[in-house]
Amino acid sequence: MQTTRQWQIDAVGPERQLTIGERTLEPVSGNRVLVRTEAVSLNFRDRLVMESGMGLPLQFPFVPASDMAGVVEAVGPEVSRFKPGDRVISTFSPDWIDGRGLGDARTPPYKTRGGFYPGVLSQYTVLSEEWYSRAPDTLDAAQASTLPCAGLTAWFALIERGGLKAGDKVLVQGTGGVALFGLQIAKTHGAEVFITSGSAEKLERAVALGADHAINRHEGDWVEQLYQLTGGYGADHVLEIVGGPHLGQALKAVAINGRISVIGVFEGFEVSGPAGPLLLKAPVVQGISVGHRRALEDLVRAIDQTGLKPVIDKRYAFDKFPEALDHLYRGPFGKVVVEF
Amino acid sequence: MQTTRQWQIDAVGPERQLTIGERTLEPVSGNRVLVRTEAVSLNFRDRLVMESGMGLPLQFPFVPASDMAGVVEAVGPEVSRFKPGDRVISTFSPDWIDGRGLGDARTPPYKTRGGFYPGVLSQYTVLSEEWYSRAPDTLDAAQASTLPCAGLTAWFALIERGGLKAGDKVLVQGTGGVALFGLQIAKTHGAEVFITSGSAEKLERAVALGADHAINRHEGDWVEQLYQLTGGYGADHVLEIVGGPHLGQALKAVAINGRISVIGVFEGFEVSGPAGPLLLKAPVVQGISVGHRRALEDLVRAIDQTGLKPVIDKRYAFDKFPEALDHLYRGPFGKVVVEF
Amino acid sequence: MQTTRQWQIDAVGPERQLTIGERTLEPVSGNRVLVRTEAVSLNFRDRLVMESGMGLPLQFPFVPASDMAGVVEAVGPEVSRFKPGDRVISTFSPDWIDGRGLGDARTPPYKTRGGFYPGVLSQYTVLSEEWYSRAPDTLDAAQASTLPCAGLTAWFALIERGGLKAGDKVLVQGTGGVALFGLQIAKTHGAEVFITSGSAEKLERAVALGADHAINRHEGDWVEQLYQLTGGYGADHVLEIVGGPHLGQALKAVAINGRISVIGVFEGFEVSGPAGPLLLKAPVVQGISVGHRRALEDLVRAIDQTGLKPVIDKRYAFDKFPEALDHLYRGPFGKVVVEF
Amino acid sequence: MQTTRQWQIDAVGPERQLTIGERTLEPVSGNRVLVRTEAVSLNFRDRLVMESGMGLPLQFPFVPASDMAGVVEAVGPEVSRFKPGDRVISTFSPDWIDGRGLGDARTPPYKTRGGFYPGVLSQYTVLSEEWYSRAPDTLDAAQASTLPCAGLTAWFALIERGGLKAGDKVLVQGTGGVALFGLQIAKTHGAEVFITSGSAEKLERAVALGADHAINRHEGDWVEQLYQLTGGYGADHVLEIVGGPHLGQALKAVAINGRISVIGVFEGFEVSGPAGPLLLKAPVVQGISVGHRRALEDLVRAIDQTGLKPVIDKRYAFDKFPEALDHLYRGPFGKVVVEF
Repeated sequence: MQTTRQWQIDAVGPERQLTIGERTLEPVSGNRVLVRTEAVSLNFRDRLVMESGMGLPLQFPFVPASDMAGVVEAVGPEVSRFKPGDRVISTFSPDWIDGRGLGDARTPPYKTRGGFYPGVLSQYTVLSEEWYSRAPDTLDAAQASTLPCAGLTAWFALIERGGLKAGDKVLVQGTGGVALFGLQIAKTHGAEVFITSGSAEKLERAVALGADHAINRHEGDWVEQLYQLTGGYGADHVLEIVGGPHLGQALKAVAINGRISVIGVFEGFEVSGPAGPLLLKAPVVQGISVGHRRALEDLVRAIDQTGLKPVIDKRYAFDKFPEALDHLYRGPFGKVVVEF
Repeated sequence: MQTTRQWQIDAVGPERQLTIGERTLEPVSGNRVLVRTEAVSLNFRDRLVMESGMGLPLQFPFVPASDMAGVVEAVGPEVSRFKPGDRVISTFSPDWIDGRGLGDARTPPYKTRGGFYPGVLSQYTVLSEEWYSRAPDTLDAAQASTLPCAGLTAWFALIERGGLKAGDKVLVQGTGGVALFGLQIAKTHGAEVFITSGSAEKLERAVALGADHAINRHEGDWVEQLYQLTGGYGADHVLEIVGGPHLGQALKAVAINGRISVIGVFEGFEVSGPAGPLLLKAPVVQGISVGHRRALEDLVRAIDQTGLKPVIDKRYAFDKFPEALDHLYRGPFGKVVVEF
Repeated sequence: MQTTRQWQIDAVGPERQLTIGERTLEPVSGNRVLVRTEAVSLNFRDRLVMESGMGLPLQFPFVPASDMAGVVEAVGPEVSRFKPGDRVISTFSPDWIDGRGLGDARTPPYKTRGGFYPGVLSQYTVLSEEWYSRAPDTLDAAQASTLPCAGLTAWFALIERGGLKAGDKVLVQGTGGVALFGLQIAKTHGAEVFITSGSAEKLERAVALGADHAINRHEGDWVEQLYQLTGGYGADHVLEIVGGPHLGQALKAVAINGRISVIGVFEGFEVSGPAGPLLLKAPVVQGISVGHRRALEDLVRAIDQTGLKPVIDKRYAFDKFPEALDHLYRGPFGKVVVEF
Repeated sequence: MQTTRQWQIDAVGPERQLTIGERTLEPVSGNRVLVRTEAVSLNFRDRLVMESGMGLPLQFPFVPASDMAGVVEAVGPEVSRFKPGDRVISTFSPDWIDGRGLGDARTPPYKTRGGFYPGVLSQYTVLSEEWYSRAPDTLDAAQASTLPCAGLTAWFALIERGGLKAGDKVLVQGTGGVALFGLQIAKTHGAEVFITSGSAEKLERAVALGADHAINRHEGDWVEQLYQLTGGYGADHVLEIVGGPHLGQALKAVAINGRISVIGVFEGFEVSGPAGPLLLKAPVVQGISVGHRRALEDLVRAIDQTGLKPVIDKRYAFDKFPEALDHLYRGPFGKVVVEF
């Protein structure tokens, strides 16, 4: 019986203890695949889960993190999508394959990796083949591990839901993982990208990545800066990552019949804004809950075609997971990844 | 030179004086049509314009109201869409024919009838033929006059933007003009309609009009009632007419990947709500600024095909316009119309 | 070990022998459900499969037919969607749940019930719970059995792909199963329905079902009749069921930017038509390969909400399946069903 | 009174005489603008109009050609969209601004420049401001003149109707004007482009322009080559420019739920193909009749943002228009332009 080493917690809370544990793996039966983890990408949400549990029915010891890349080592007798040696990435909402989302009004979908389901900070996992997608050929494992949450969120907002096209104006807030994917995905579609940040140095790096316009939030109202840069036109797409009352700024920034994708909640769980621009400009405001597997497969295909390389701020060794977690709080430029 | 009698104000404000004035009509040249007004439908917005001006550059004496039905009496030499005797209705945003809306992010579209442009409470008007649509054959003038704002708003939300289909669950708030159009339009498409109100008597009338479920807001949380009526499913479409923090209730009520059309601002110009259901259920929240002429033509066609009859709470004679305005404040069941 | 009686063939061909055989059922393990068949609805395709095999790798003895309604009698330990006593209907493409279709350009999807997979003319079946949908509460078993192919095809064409709305003009060709579903579904959405047939008696019955206009194909060019009935407007949606060069007629009949759903191939497997109206009117021409399970669930919901009753031309007892098959060739008005 | 020199014909037919004539210009009144032509781009259709009239009610002397770029020299008193000195391009269907197309089923839209309306091979024109769009800042006049027909057709097919995204597989037939725009527009959106041609030299030039895969039609069935290059997946988008029975090849080539844009009729006005792949793969087949002005404005914006440069095979002086016309028959690589 094979075992696996894994990072785990025994309870949630600000004082939760991170330890490395060991677990016996399930048999590789039916449609299950045994995957050896090569890299795990961290998200801010991983901290929220460990610190608050986010109301999820976690089972302890709980393994954190939702996004990984690895290699198939063995497959069950009913597996048809993968074979040993295939490079794969995980899916965030394993049961959402395509089309309409799961859950209902009273009980929104919450069955995700590293939340309801155990996470991926484990050397090996044995799970249904349906829970994985093919990794891009053109990315290494660390890069590939950033796609299931951060990459797919930006793709789902701009492409699957947003139908972005060349010449569109895209406003991206900040330089975190989703924001930089938004910048890169928008550029591969020929869009014009406006990026906001409070850091001149980060803006410089964003411009080097392809941003057309850098807007420093410390140099006056960023919406007014956007108006001036666009002759009053505004942004066709806004990735609203700040949260809370900041939606009001997005409503001012958005173009006529534009689109605001609500993604982040850094500044509050109660979104608000003026009804005037919402009514008069008639934009679509849509929350983005990552996305389905079919869109992840589309993203993988786009990555291989365009050569887009995800931005990794720093790579940490497996044993350094706690340091990687700390990095999340310091506002990384792009992603933080743990390599195995 | 022909003249016309009209209701007018000489200044905006809570104490504005309503008077009947007289004006000389423009010549019926170029692509202009002379239309004799038969009925004008009132909207809550007409009061807002007269009382506050809503920031619009009104010209005085200002003629209020945006929605009318009438008969073409004469046409200019370049007119091709109408001939004398044709029954017509006005358009709310005369310059918006189809497709993308007008204006930009800094200056949202505001050039509407009875606002930036003079209103329609006048016995005659001489305007471009582009500013009118054919009236339905199956409605009288008073009924037809309710379509340009209230009817089109509900149609644009549910059909043009919403793609409503049979079996969908639609939640309508209240029993005002837009709400009852929402109810009726939803029923002509085979949807299941849930209507909320604080009045048992109005709910009874709504059920007589075809509502499947009546939810009394005074008998507990209406969202919980909706959950129970739908087994937790929620509403595919919510017509959010209340405004302000009430958007939060709509976010709780909406089904997975459903749609909230933000229409009304009765309870506040700052909309707000919890990010959780917005993110997890990923609904579309979209403001509705009435709609374009092509959709109005679609609505007219649908009215004639389905036999839908707009609900008029009371008809007032031209001289009784002030009483009709007062009626607006008492919460009419459907529309209030002035007949000429 | 439970057994089941079933209709079967041992080889395909015009002279294939229909016999009643008996088979041992699989165990009700895993996510399997045991369903007792109550009714099977026949499609023209069932004849094509039995007579030609349609190039499919059939396993003999082969059980024909794809559409059934029945009752769950037992469930495996992993089943979560159904319980004993639930009324269910089959799905035509069991592996297509939602979103993008399966297969690829070289190998289009062909894994359907009663084709690649065994059919349903069997007293009992033991299959994955994923292969069934809930039956409508408001239909009996025979009526419910008509939904998986005929009902869903019309729904997918007009609603899922077509976004039909009230006032739209829908042209339906003939009075077969899909055609009458098209008529009824269009009417529940407030559309205006034009139906063509060569039989005055069938047209009369179609009008009784709600068709707005009957067009007798023997009384002159039906496209010209449509032009006259619509003032030259044409049809927003055409259900093209005839096949072959008849697509040319559909291209003439379709309105600007309208939609032609190609469904039937009665008159030939090579479709053709003039490029002029295709280019100038820019309609969408789309083949319809039935539809996915999510849309079938939407249809079931719509049926229960609107009270739509499928049209069954005649019901046959299980033993009379050969007579039922013969009926298919005589051009039934609606569906032919075998009851168990 | 200002006059203009122009190319003209006095009758249609294979033997039509091309002459340079002179005409008095209309006054620059109302919403008219006087535009000095700088370049005119030719289309194959220009030959069809001159040789057959295409059934259009032409007025003689008839000025051919539909696509131009020029400079505004004077504006009428009601003009608001342009001022003297503005660089503009023409629109192909001047009355189609946005949304649904014009015309009806019986009388498809045909009121285009260089057809129903007089063409643009004239040194000056005086027309409504609504008939022009802003030219891109980043193109010279000859390049800009290629957008109204060839550029917009490819854009409308792939972007406005097609919603192309990065990673999509696009099959482009040949190396004419629309085909090369299709190639370039697809590449600016991150797509993978397959181009077919019978000329190894043209394929080489297409690869230099960015095509990912060159398929020589003389080296075996191009559909089979596409299958092999894509592992059987096929093409998400096919620009079907050949016409006639070639649609059948497009139907074989297209991916599941893909899109075939029917554009060209070089090999016949009767399109045809097998029903099998149309039904089983359920692609959208849509004719493309160039596009509306709003989409042309989107394309102009995209051109300026992405730096796309239209491919001009050869530029001819105004006096050399007959030589330019001859060039059209020799299969240009991209566009043929007349400069003033």
